[in-house]
Amino acid sequence: MSAMDWPALVTLGVLALGFATAWLVGRARVKYGIKAPATTGHEMFERAYRVQMNTLENTVLFLPALWLAAHYVGALAATVLGGVWLAGRVWYAIAYMANPKKRGAGFTLAYIAWGLMMIGAAWGVLNSLAGK
Amino acid sequence: MSAMDWPALVTLGVLALGFATAWLVGRARVKYGIKAPATTGHEMFERAYRVQMNTLENTVLFLPALWLAAHYVGALAATVLGGVWLAGRVWYAIAYMANPKKRGAGFTLAYIAWGLMMIGAAWGVLNSLAGK
Amino acid sequence: MSAMDWPALVTLGVLALGFATAWLVGRARVKYGIKAPATTGHEMFERAYRVQMNTLENTVLFLPALWLAAHYVGALAATVLGGVWLAGRVWYAIAYMANPKKRGAGFTLAYIAWGLMMIGAAWGVLNSLAGK
Repeated sequence: MSAMDWPALVTLGVLALGFATAWLVGRARVKYGIKAPATTGHEMFERAYRVQMNTLENTVLFLPALWLAAHYVGALAATVLGGVWLAGRVWYAIAYMANPKKRGAGFTLAYIAWGLMMIGAAWGVLNSLAGK
Repeated sequence: MSAMDWPALVTLGVLALGFATAWLVGRARVKYGIKAPATTGHEMFERAYRVQMNTLENTVLFLPALWLAAHYVGALAATVLGGVWLAGRVWYAIAYMANPKKRGAGFTLAYIAWGLMMIGAAWGVLNSLAGK
Repeated sequence: MSAMDWPALVTLGVLALGFATAWLVGRARVKYGIKAPATTGHEMFERAYRVQMNTLENTVLFLPALWLAAHYVGALAATVLGGVWLAGRVWYAIAYMANPKKRGAGFTLAYIAWGLMMIGAAWGVLNSLAGK
């Protein structure tokens, strides 16, 4: 066992969420008859598509922050914050599909966890550069 | 030489594919007179744009899976599966541009390779956490 | 201190830029009354959205190239090229918001830096595989 197994596990969970949001778009494409390459035409398809894209863009910001936090702060802190992020993003996806106006809480929770990872990683990088 | 040179080479190939799909969008933007920031207006532009976005979202899911599989399963297995994924994604891009209805085969091939990497990585992480 | 602190710092800067472009989209959504899940409806919202998506897709191509260049070429070279890329992308974002026709210079600067990182990383990988 290595402490880095834990952020690796979080990463796999995040990739599985990304796959799930892509799968929902594919299902909505069939269900609502949105033929590729269109990405508009039915409210429910557009919700699924926005959930996927927003999850994607946040995943791109999340994964490097997770691993930098794991390296510079510690695997445990990164795993806890990463788990909170993942929970917030699952909450966001479910809430958005039900009602786009309800997407705020999970979204905000995930961003708080991300912000803490970023602050921790920046602190660690700057301290390391300063030779401490 | 390090065994990890091989997944590094696959990674460079995937980045080159991402660049190629972005380049096709830029070319279609000029060719069909789609002025930024619009992303609709001509079927062929929209195909190129969807190919780029779908390649992008799959790359985000692919690269971490590739490297986790390389670490937890082995560089050789990850490289073979990563090569299959890359071939499937090139096939997808070419087929989609010709006819969006033909995009399924390459897409599915890449997802199978991705799924095997995910299963291998998850197995490796869980075994490591279990102390095996 | 580790030489890899520098590409880590560049990575944090790139993540901060990604956050800033997402924040501009959220602000434009409120300011121009674009209700989710729509992504069209006002020129200024669409500019912010395109800046975000273009930054995102380029970040996905950039971060692996940065770290492969840091590993195979050296942390200093990767950091300099990564800093140029980041400056080019900030320039692109500001110019695009002011006038989409002016987006070319920063975009091109960033792509040149990216191309050099890719060439350096490919050279390093191939030399390593060749046993040099």
